[in-house]
Amino acid sequence: MKKRNQLILGLFLFVYTSLSAQAQSAPVGDTTRVAILLFPGVELLDFAGPLEVFNHMESAKVYTVAAQSGPMTIMQRMLTVVPEYTLSTAPLPDVLVVPGGRMEEVMQDSSVVSWIRRTTSHRQLTMSVCTGTFLLGKAGLLDGKTITTHWAATQMLQQMTPKATVMEHTRFVDQGNLVTTAGVSAGIDGALRVVARLKGMEAAKQIARIMEYDKWDPKAGLVVGQIRTQAKGKANPTVGKPAAVKKTVVMKPGQWKLTSSIDPVCQMSVDGLVADTARYMGKTYGFCSKMCKERFRKEPMTYLKH
Amino acid sequence: MKKRNQLILGLFLFVYTSLSAQAQSAPVGDTTRVAILLFPGVELLDFAGPLEVFNHMESAKVYTVAAQSGPMTIMQRMLTVVPEYTLSTAPLPDVLVVPGGRMEEVMQDSSVVSWIRRTTSHRQLTMSVCTGTFLLGKAGLLDGKTITTHWAATQMLQQMTPKATVMEHTRFVDQGNLVTTAGVSAGIDGALRVVARLKGMEAAKQIARIMEYDKWDPKAGLVVGQIRTQAKGKANPTVGKPAAVKKTVVMKPGQWKLTSSIDPVCQMSVDGLVADTARYMGKTYGFCSKMCKERFRKEPMTYLKH
Repeated sequence: MKKRNQLILGLFLFVYTSLSAQAQSAPVGDTTRVAILLFPGVELLDFAGPLEVFNHMESAKVYTVAAQSGPMTIMQRMLTVVPEYTLSTAPLPDVLVVPGGRMEEVMQDSSVVSWIRRTTSHRQLTMSVCTGTFLLGKAGLLDGKTITTHWAATQMLQQMTPKATVMEHTRFVDQGNLVTTAGVSAGIDGALRVVARLKGMEAAKQIARIMEYDKWDPKAGLVVGQIRTQAKGKANPTVGKPAAVKKTVVMKPGQWKLTSSIDPVCQMSVDGLVADTARYMGKTYGFCSKMCKERFRKEPMTYLKH
Repeated sequence: MKKRNQLILGLFLFVYTSLSAQAQSAPVGDTTRVAILLFPGVELLDFAGPLEVFNHMESAKVYTVAAQSGPMTIMQRMLTVVPEYTLSTAPLPDVLVVPGGRMEEVMQDSSVVSWIRRTTSHRQLTMSVCTGTFLLGKAGLLDGKTITTHWAATQMLQQMTPKATVMEHTRFVDQGNLVTTAGVSAGIDGALRVVARLKGMEAAKQIARIMEYDKWDPKAGLVVGQIRTQAKGKANPTVGKPAAVKKTVVMKPGQWKLTSSIDPVCQMSVDGLVADTARYMGKTYGFCSKMCKERFRKEPMTYLKH
């Protein structure tokens, strides 16, 4: 019986590993370094969701980083976590995840704020979850941006960042190198959106399947630059939300004559939602975002050989 | 500007705390002790989801416990966690949460297996997430039970526990003092189900709202003893699942003449789904489970005064 159980568990581990490998079956590119910022008082699910998602992403190197090297107590207090790196030892990330939690202490920590500011460049993608968006505001990264946060904090965020447009009832907002999400569990959706952009929609769906996040709606967010008259929150009517005015971001592209209605990089439909286009070998391709266009222009054949 | 930010953040913390207090506004009973089992190789989201949910539950004392007291690396390897208690120092829990992960080592740890067996009694509720169900099988707690696990492992679980009925495509299975869930993120749904049973549906909805888990479907699970011809998985059609035969558990109650179609304890509808009934002051009340009936019989006026 003991041997049989070991056999069964070994088999399951094989299946689980295969699933993860399957999710990573897209062409292997350079390693994507994903840093998860931790701090005393960090909200557990805010960082656990994205960590889980990115850990399944093809050729991703995910690591945790904090101002201090020792153990720190999370917001929920009954768990202590130890990050892998400090701000000075962490590799420069391609994707930076900033979770929320008890923010007052970390927002006064100038080493964290300046590290976020320093590591955020045009080549890098920064993603905040829940009240983590306030930390990006403190770092001065939100002026002129369309952003979101936990539904209970949208008005406060708008007060703090008067030059930003704060969205309500929006699971995530994707604005190029900045992705902000609603509260707590919405970090999973935001991370899946980033995977869809970097590795394609099929890779994101495969990860959602491994995580049994089967209610995931890839369109329940706002991609700035796409035509969408309102964010599709699709709130469960049994779970109430406070009434609030929805802001909308609408950009109208010209008339495109596209070779395909599918973004060749992320495989998302761009039917009526074209953010940008590129000409290649006599054909015009449409993209959901400028980042997809840039990726295409660097290596068009990688995305056209499917 | 600095003062203003502090004011804003202070305000948000107030709101967040108020939300949590609101979720806990049901009559305060005895403390519910919720133990989250950790082990080297534990899956992050498997335990993070339930920990998050139970931490918002009224008069809950949530704590982490492991065989060893020192830091341990989780399945995802880039994070080390430190539990609060060891098996010998942990208080006896009312609710025990057993997450999954890399199981081979912990399933060979007889101290953990015997602790699970010892702490699981009829007065206590044990909940497993994902492959955590295998650990309950190792402890001999699954014979004759209806259970579930990660979709990739249901057949292996059925092989390991031939006397149990393993459900596929079922977000959670609630069978009295045993609740098992599907993989990873389904632990959130299972924990919300337990909250609904212990503190009522409104408390569970409020927690889902705080966590922005707005896609939660309280009925996407199987409550053994309720009439339901099949589990309502409601899988997103864009996220595929392997075809498999669904098993069904159907129990037919007699003809009830109920005072109300609402279970007075958990406030769930029992319209056509009555698991048990009780007579009190000349009226007949219907319950979704035997646990709700027992709670009612102990303190009927607590549940009838609303």
